[in-house]
Amino acid sequence: MRQPTVYLLSCGDELLFGHTVDTNSAWLAEQCTLQGWRLVGHRTIGDITPDIVSALLEASALAEAVILTGGLGPTRDDRTRQALAHALGVELREDPEALAEIQAIFKRYNRPMAEANRVQALIPAGAGRIVNPNGTAPGIRAVLRDAKIFCLPGVPREMREMFKQSILPVLKGAEGAAQEVMRRLHLCGRGESDIGAAIRHLMGERSNPEVGTAVAESIVTVRLYAKGDTRTEAERTAAEAEADIRKALGHDVYGVDDETLAGCVVKLLAERSASLVVGESCTGGLLSSLIVDVPGASSVFRQGIVAYANAAKTDLLGVPAGIIGKHGAVSRETVSAMAENHLRRTNFPLPAYSIATTGIAGPDGGTPEKPVGTVWIACSRLDPDGGGITRSFRLNTVTDRRGVRMRAANAALDLARRTILGYPSNYQVEESNWKKD
Amino acid sequence: MRQPTVYLLSCGDELLFGHTVDTNSAWLAEQCTLQGWRLVGHRTIGDITPDIVSALLEASALAEAVILTGGLGPTRDDRTRQALAHALGVELREDPEALAEIQAIFKRYNRPMAEANRVQALIPAGAGRIVNPNGTAPGIRAVLRDAKIFCLPGVPREMREMFKQSILPVLKGAEGAAQEVMRRLHLCGRGESDIGAAIRHLMGERSNPEVGTAVAESIVTVRLYAKGDTRTEAERTAAEAEADIRKALGHDVYGVDDETLAGCVVKLLAERSASLVVGESCTGGLLSSLIVDVPGASSVFRQGIVAYANAAKTDLLGVPAGIIGKHGAVSRETVSAMAENHLRRTNFPLPAYSIATTGIAGPDGGTPEKPVGTVWIACSRLDPDGGGITRSFRLNTVTDRRGVRMRAANAALDLARRTILGYPSNYQVEESNWKKD
Repeated sequence: MRQPTVYLLSCGDELLFGHTVDTNSAWLAEQCTLQGWRLVGHRTIGDITPDIVSALLEASALAEAVILTGGLGPTRDDRTRQALAHALGVELREDPEALAEIQAIFKRYNRPMAEANRVQALIPAGAGRIVNPNGTAPGIRAVLRDAKIFCLPGVPREMREMFKQSILPVLKGAEGAAQEVMRRLHLCGRGESDIGAAIRHLMGERSNPEVGTAVAESIVTVRLYAKGDTRTEAERTAAEAEADIRKALGHDVYGVDDETLAGCVVKLLAERSASLVVGESCTGGLLSSLIVDVPGASSVFRQGIVAYANAAKTDLLGVPAGIIGKHGAVSRETVSAMAENHLRRTNFPLPAYSIATTGIAGPDGGTPEKPVGTVWIACSRLDPDGGGITRSFRLNTVTDRRGVRMRAANAALDLARRTILGYPSNYQVEESNWKKD
Repeated sequence: MRQPTVYLLSCGDELLFGHTVDTNSAWLAEQCTLQGWRLVGHRTIGDITPDIVSALLEASALAEAVILTGGLGPTRDDRTRQALAHALGVELREDPEALAEIQAIFKRYNRPMAEANRVQALIPAGAGRIVNPNGTAPGIRAVLRDAKIFCLPGVPREMREMFKQSILPVLKGAEGAAQEVMRRLHLCGRGESDIGAAIRHLMGERSNPEVGTAVAESIVTVRLYAKGDTRTEAERTAAEAEADIRKALGHDVYGVDDETLAGCVVKLLAERSASLVVGESCTGGLLSSLIVDVPGASSVFRQGIVAYANAAKTDLLGVPAGIIGKHGAVSRETVSAMAENHLRRTNFPLPAYSIATTGIAGPDGGTPEKPVGTVWIACSRLDPDGGGITRSFRLNTVTDRRGVRMRAANAALDLARRTILGYPSNYQVEESNWKKD
């Protein structure tokens, strides 16, 4: 089956020199692949007009569609407009409709238009503009050596909306596309090599579906990529493989494709009309932030306390100073009290869940008994009858400060998920019962 | 001046299909550029052995050094080892020292070694291994068509340490390198086109230094890239341009190169032996998390409260319910009370600073008067004599949920920086005095 081809160009010195991570290419690659387009290349170029010109000419010779992002801003180092005009062998001219749109954007936000922004209305003669509903830089569409060229601004939110509105409909219509199905299954709380061993029989090279694994901050993703002569056939192959993988990995799978662990926890709590509170030490707000990232989190999430100083653990979460003194701030006793006593103090609708973390994120603060990367994690539930449970475990992780915090936050969300669903954990979890007076 | 050349290869279906954002390439590109190496290419390839082989052959023909990341894991879809052996025309063999290191890693973490991990000790005959102090996958070094090949695991923390220990010394010694100086200046609270206009005279194409701008979540970065026949000359050119830019942009520059806005705030507070507390609504823990990301934040940061529910704003931050009722949760009055009353309630060492945010992150919850993206931000200071000030302003931003939260957190940190230093703001900031009883 012939697949139409696409080439991605990312333009900007900040990308070439590595100051900015190129998230646009990953997003565009995924979108194109999901439409059944085959990526034949991806190249990063700097803000040098001749380099952009030669990249456009090369890409248009290799692929049927070229998507270039970046270089459409209002400053002098934005050179995509000139480069495209040069590649096409035409002049730039001011597009009155583009200018009117830019002026309207400034008017909407009650700001005067800087003269510098006028240059954003320039478009190569004969090319078309792509409407940007969210910013001042219109995109440009043109045809170069039979290839469709789409130039989009580098600002991710603007780029994504323009891709969806103006480019996706063009890609969708392509002959030969969409006989491929991609799916990702996400797991937390189990090692990648262990998961790889459990599904080894599915992971041959050039098999159908192709199955692979990747890990990032304790989240393992199993991705499968199924092909077929028809869409239905590809979907059946994907569904069969997914069932196989779920059979092998059971409770450990928490989500599919764009589902996040925090999104899964919010959904489970919303289905139970439950409340959620969070008490954090080493994760320092990250756990709350992951939850608040989920649209609609306000239906379950009530409050978070970042009890960084020990005095805050006592004042705000009701951890007795004696417990911290006896067992240390990083201990099962402290984390359990952080989770439990947070629920004792609050009057949010029941059932209510509480998650807590306390650990040593580093680079300093480690001891031989409690090295950097030691994190205690707890999840408590308070039921309407005043009874409750607390589950806790210790995570030992070896990475940098940001990594410790990210893995601890993921482990805490995974413990919450397993506690809500009554699932076991692969860690040594201790469970106790308690009662609210 | 001849510059040695380097080519980057990123290996993994998760990168090619866009499931994972390739942060390694940005980091490596920056490291190589800082050493004066010229990047001639960057390509992403999937987990297909022949594709990896041809990419290695192509890259080794184009550059003097090739750095490949990924594909060294323990699962069947990790194919870099085989591909490199194939490109070199040799067999894989088990390296006893590599095996001993992998076994030692498992021993250190008290876990049994999965049989799957044994494959990670395989290395092409005649190639060398690169020690990985932080993980089970050793790297591989080889010479292919006169090019130095370095294969590193894709896990960022492992890759970075191995690059620094084993590759950097090789790159450093190269003839012709290091006559280039790169510098980045970061600003918050001023628009990119306004900044571009202020330094337009420095932004010509192919000038020395080359100067460009980029923006991400309200942080504008001005980068300059200076060249010279000698290192000293390049450094002098960079320093002159930096002085020029600082003269044009003044108080708005908060940091250089890897300095973050949160790092700047922590440093300023530590120099003053001051305390910091945070009260967040829409930013939902993100503001605290950015601060806790800074190593050593514990010397100033005491506690953060994520007062997501209105009841939490009243209970935990002491915002009178009447104020929320009269002016709304998203108002100057509420955000000022969040910042001020948080300080009234706490007994941390003085001077103490308090930052607060409340706004509408979307996608729902907007009204014609307070559309999605409206965020109120305040910063209060309490002095040892009981006197205090509060500064507040409204940020209007148009982006998605994550973007609103990120820009609000940055704007709050920037207000804290300007308040600590007594600098003016480009926003309409209102200032009031108060007294702790």
